[in-house]
Amino acid sequence: MGIVVQKFGGTSVANTEKLFKVCNRIIAEKEKGNKVVVVVSAQGKTTDELIRQEKEIEEKASMREHDVLVSVGEQITIAKLSMCLEKLGHNAISLTGWQVPIFTNNIHGEALIDYIDIERIERELNNGNIVIVAGFQGIDENNDITTLGRGGSDTTGVALAVALKADKCDIYTDVDGVYSSDPNKVEATKRIKSISYDEMLELASAGAKVLHNRCVEMAKKYNVPVSVRSTFKPEDEGTKINNTKIALEGASVTGVTKQNSNSKIAVIGKNNQIGRLYKVFKLLANNNINIDMIAQAAGEDIIKSVSFSIQDKDLNKALEVLEANKEDLQIEQIKYYSNLAKVSIVGLGMMNNPGVAAGMFETLYDENIEIQMVSTSEIKVSVLVEEEKAEQAMRAIHKKFMGE
Amino acid sequence: MGIVVQKFGGTSVANTEKLFKVCNRIIAEKEKGNKVVVVVSAQGKTTDELIRQEKEIEEKASMREHDVLVSVGEQITIAKLSMCLEKLGHNAISLTGWQVPIFTNNIHGEALIDYIDIERIERELNNGNIVIVAGFQGIDENNDITTLGRGGSDTTGVALAVALKADKCDIYTDVDGVYSSDPNKVEATKRIKSISYDEMLELASAGAKVLHNRCVEMAKKYNVPVSVRSTFKPEDEGTKINNTKIALEGASVTGVTKQNSNSKIAVIGKNNQIGRLYKVFKLLANNNINIDMIAQAAGEDIIKSVSFSIQDKDLNKALEVLEANKEDLQIEQIKYYSNLAKVSIVGLGMMNNPGVAAGMFETLYDENIEIQMVSTSEIKVSVLVEEEKAEQAMRAIHKKFMGE
Repeated sequence: MGIVVQKFGGTSVANTEKLFKVCNRIIAEKEKGNKVVVVVSAQGKTTDELIRQEKEIEEKASMREHDVLVSVGEQITIAKLSMCLEKLGHNAISLTGWQVPIFTNNIHGEALIDYIDIERIERELNNGNIVIVAGFQGIDENNDITTLGRGGSDTTGVALAVALKADKCDIYTDVDGVYSSDPNKVEATKRIKSISYDEMLELASAGAKVLHNRCVEMAKKYNVPVSVRSTFKPEDEGTKINNTKIALEGASVTGVTKQNSNSKIAVIGKNNQIGRLYKVFKLLANNNINIDMIAQAAGEDIIKSVSFSIQDKDLNKALEVLEANKEDLQIEQIKYYSNLAKVSIVGLGMMNNPGVAAGMFETLYDENIEIQMVSTSEIKVSVLVEEEKAEQAMRAIHKKFMGE
Repeated sequence: MGIVVQKFGGTSVANTEKLFKVCNRIIAEKEKGNKVVVVVSAQGKTTDELIRQEKEIEEKASMREHDVLVSVGEQITIAKLSMCLEKLGHNAISLTGWQVPIFTNNIHGEALIDYIDIERIERELNNGNIVIVAGFQGIDENNDITTLGRGGSDTTGVALAVALKADKCDIYTDVDGVYSSDPNKVEATKRIKSISYDEMLELASAGAKVLHNRCVEMAKKYNVPVSVRSTFKPEDEGTKINNTKIALEGASVTGVTKQNSNSKIAVIGKNNQIGRLYKVFKLLANNNINIDMIAQAAGEDIIKSVSFSIQDKDLNKALEVLEANKEDLQIEQIKYYSNLAKVSIVGLGMMNNPGVAAGMFETLYDENIEIQMVSTSEIKVSVLVEEEKAEQAMRAIHKKFMGE
């Protein structure tokens, strides 16, 4: 008899009819002889509506009170889901974040989980209860309610699976798995049956929106098998995310993604000043501007100039602070390009096979798409291209590596 | 510098505009130099809507989960009210029932307050915060959320005033005080400036719906001055409820009330069986039927028959259980009358002045209204009359004792 954690997102619990459908998934797992812990999000658009009401009062309300307000969304779901299960003749008990308790740090709205006390959950499981836990929320050392940030219910699910040493964590959602690309943009997109933690992380950071990155990192760290499944297709096993190591030889491209709204800035120095690189990035970090890709000029000018990419929304601020420090940093010229898209391919074993990056570049050349910047990791190759050519790039790359 | 507790009901906090009006009342008290603790109900019809959603799932849901669900109403209000106060430049902090904490017994839906730990509230007050507490809710020894039952936010307010040794507890509501009768029924109705705890208790149990009875009992027990005031007429002092002892001589009728939907049952025994009286009432109590007024027959038949009043809604059940036990209880006959109204007059010193009851009976005789049953207490005289004549009775009695 094992422990299984199931997580259901807001769409899956949006109304009473759907809550009863969710019950079927829970009861099926229970009737296999497992102890079941269920994590739920707020119903449908509840959180958005609470935030709308908050903004009616104050655009920048205190984050402590924000957390008190928005955390009611999951509290409503856990009570209702427990009632549904009891109605169907199964013992269930709801627990809020503070009742578990799930201890977090005190960064309201973006809290990180420190520690989960499993005593109460284990007691309720041993009493034969299905335990329904409010996702997305916790409690800090001052006894104040915290939230993990949007999408944080996935993290609650995986964190509970870690703490309870669960056999698996099934993330039920309104899509039926992780895909090799965006099905709305690339017709040939295929669903991925199995993917490694690292690939999933790269896919998520490259623009796929299936899972909260933090929960994948946690699953990887503690080696918890996670599945992404459809609430409404119970027979379907979805996508398994685990520490699989396939593709021992040759590259296996798992997915192609696209992320819009990138800008590129090129900073050209007056001279080969060694400290410029760290000074530029420290300056931007101090102004809360996140940098994604970085490219240094090659050859003799290696420390004379640097290019990097940021989000379009940060472009004006970045240009402003660089301009203000132009003298200090001995900057000759600042060039920039906005409305770029990052197109990435992700797959294990990619770096052992130089042909993959070359194949990607060749495909883009054949399509007459200019590459603005390149970055690579162990399992990812990303390029910056013009936004308006990004879908064409995705389709061509998908065809090259994964067929029609 | 004293401590003041203010309580605002659901109508007073129904929307953002009203929340900001409530802020004015709070800030005014704070600017007098007081430490202010505010208790709030759920906004408008929030609780009703949550209960409607609950009934969509299950008519008789677990009361534990019911409390998890409905307690979110007050949690939403406390967060929003704190945001409003902060928007207006005042430091405020919200606390749920479990954050205070307000410890109760574990009777979900009707919990009684055991103990309030004031350490956190005092700390927040000393830090210069206005403290906003969720009414109607607490936590039991198992760390589970409890609610005090409908109207329980008044009790939270008075209980906090007791625990904090507050100077006063102001109950703000959508009426501007306690009235001598129902203004919609009796034109000459006057607002009461000052009333004793006991009179208020009798008025409440006699049908006036201004205050939760439990909160008046608590205020009396700990001698906390309570005022009922209008949120939207700040200049108005409303009705003060305290341990005033006026009317040292002569009766002072404070109010006339009416409560519809009463039934009378007369049980006539076959013989003078001594145990019948307690057996009848034990039987009804075991079936959760509340008995209000009781009248025994006078003279030799004193233990042969008994009449009592109950709510109309309980009539069928009462008749059923009595009929089922007719043999055992040696009952000769059961008579009943429904659709009766209880008309009561309340006032200090009433029992020292037999003329009051006599005056009431004479008035009803003059109006040709038959009295079905009478009960009296230290400060109240109640009669049962036909519902359709109850308003006529109220008006005549009000005129007799309190003028036009």
